[in-house]
Amino acid sequence: MAELAYVNGTLSAIESARVPIEDRGYQFGDAVYEFIASYNGTLFCLEEHLDRLERSLRGLDFSPIPRDGIRKAILMLFEKASISRAGIYIQISRGAAPRNHLFPKSTSPQVVMTIREVEEKPAELRKNGAAAITVEDFRWGRCDLKTVQLLPNVLAKQKAIDAGAFDAIFISEGIVREATSSNFSIVSGGGIITHPLNQNILPGITRMVIIDLCKELKIPVHERFFNTEELFRADEAFLTGTVTEVLPIVQVDRRRIGEGRVGPVTQRLYEALRERAGA
Amino acid sequence: MAELAYVNGTLSAIESARVPIEDRGYQFGDAVYEFIASYNGTLFCLEEHLDRLERSLRGLDFSPIPRDGIRKAILMLFEKASISRAGIYIQISRGAAPRNHLFPKSTSPQVVMTIREVEEKPAELRKNGAAAITVEDFRWGRCDLKTVQLLPNVLAKQKAIDAGAFDAIFISEGIVREATSSNFSIVSGGGIITHPLNQNILPGITRMVIIDLCKELKIPVHERFFNTEELFRADEAFLTGTVTEVLPIVQVDRRRIGEGRVGPVTQRLYEALRERAGA
Repeated sequence: MAELAYVNGTLSAIESARVPIEDRGYQFGDAVYEFIASYNGTLFCLEEHLDRLERSLRGLDFSPIPRDGIRKAILMLFEKASISRAGIYIQISRGAAPRNHLFPKSTSPQVVMTIREVEEKPAELRKNGAAAITVEDFRWGRCDLKTVQLLPNVLAKQKAIDAGAFDAIFISEGIVREATSSNFSIVSGGGIITHPLNQNILPGITRMVIIDLCKELKIPVHERFFNTEELFRADEAFLTGTVTEVLPIVQVDRRRIGEGRVGPVTQRLYEALRERAGA
Repeated sequence: MAELAYVNGTLSAIESARVPIEDRGYQFGDAVYEFIASYNGTLFCLEEHLDRLERSLRGLDFSPIPRDGIRKAILMLFEKASISRAGIYIQISRGAAPRNHLFPKSTSPQVVMTIREVEEKPAELRKNGAAAITVEDFRWGRCDLKTVQLLPNVLAKQKAIDAGAFDAIFISEGIVREATSSNFSIVSGGGIITHPLNQNILPGITRMVIIDLCKELKIPVHERFFNTEELFRADEAFLTGTVTEVLPIVQVDRRRIGEGRVGPVTQRLYEALRERAGA
């Protein structure tokens, strides 16, 4: 078992892996990424992550990269590292070229990956739920593309931790968008309410799986906008994401959500997700 | 005369300079930058650029970096490269650490620089003026900090070039903000109207110098919001920036601004700036 880095086909220790200073990911944030996790030696939703990666690449007009090549590289890294519960981070930048805002004419995308053991969320958070704060959504206008334009997410997450909470939830025009690295949903009247897919939120893979699981479990799902008032009146609330899985949010801005403890719908979805993933 | 890179004190050719893949500038865009130009062997507005760099670093809660150390490194690089008309790019990231949104506890800022000959704007643009398009401002909410959250700027600049124009001007709530790497001003009734300093525009060094020059030249300056209607009614319009200097914009969205050619106020300010800079 070994943590590894991959840079355009070359494997190394993560600490020694390097990219050119004029990689556009470094100077412009001109790069997209994915994070894929495995359970018991099997990658979860690999094809769905590749779908989204392709969507992000297309959305930024990157030169095409054969999907088969990316898949092969991921699987090679996964096999070499031999980590049963692995997290694979994949970042693809537009290329390296002398600094200029314009797309460079003669460069090819740079593919960088790391593989590590997944850092699990604290058991205490899963048992008792987590607290969140709300922050004004000051991110850019294309949050549906999974890019490294993440500084606002970094600042909001740090603000949440400094306030003694676990995460921050972005609000714009009164509408509840999502958290700093997870989608956000509420439970109300036995059904789930979650922000519809548009340019303000990431089309989360776990969000998609949860919606599918809700169909199986006969839990109604409403993909529609909801505001902070509705959030504070909700019975339950939870985050979804690749590492977050389904994480209960029991307090927002120091106000209790529902009973202020992990609710039955959230718990059921967490268990169903873990089962689906082969955990 | 040699183009050079600097990475935490080490000099090399630009092409061979590298940073760790887990530099936060690469994975989060968690980095700030400056671009300083020289004229005839003298750096222009070095202290003003250092002021702004410190402001950006503070605005993101970076660990403090002694200003003297940064200045010394810049001057060392400038002397070594011995380029009379140089452009020095300075990028400082929060540090390198295993990927996690939270500020890392034990890392120090990474300082990367490059020095090159300045790529001058085409003489034809200076003579006849340039065209611009307007685009909806879809950047993040802290454009006053000079960070590498530049993907929207990249996409807008490319869109402008694809449309046969030179640059794109960001508009939000009908208000004219700035261009993709320059501030934007109009001339109306003999005076200058330019967006006031707030979180929607970069506090441009050249913008500041131009305002100062206007005082000398007895040209009235109004720092206030203006909308696209006012832009289209303006007598002149121009960009300001370190490499842009003062660049006339004579057409926006295929509509002529004023007479559709370089106006007298713009030309006077360009010449005054060049003189101030010792060009």
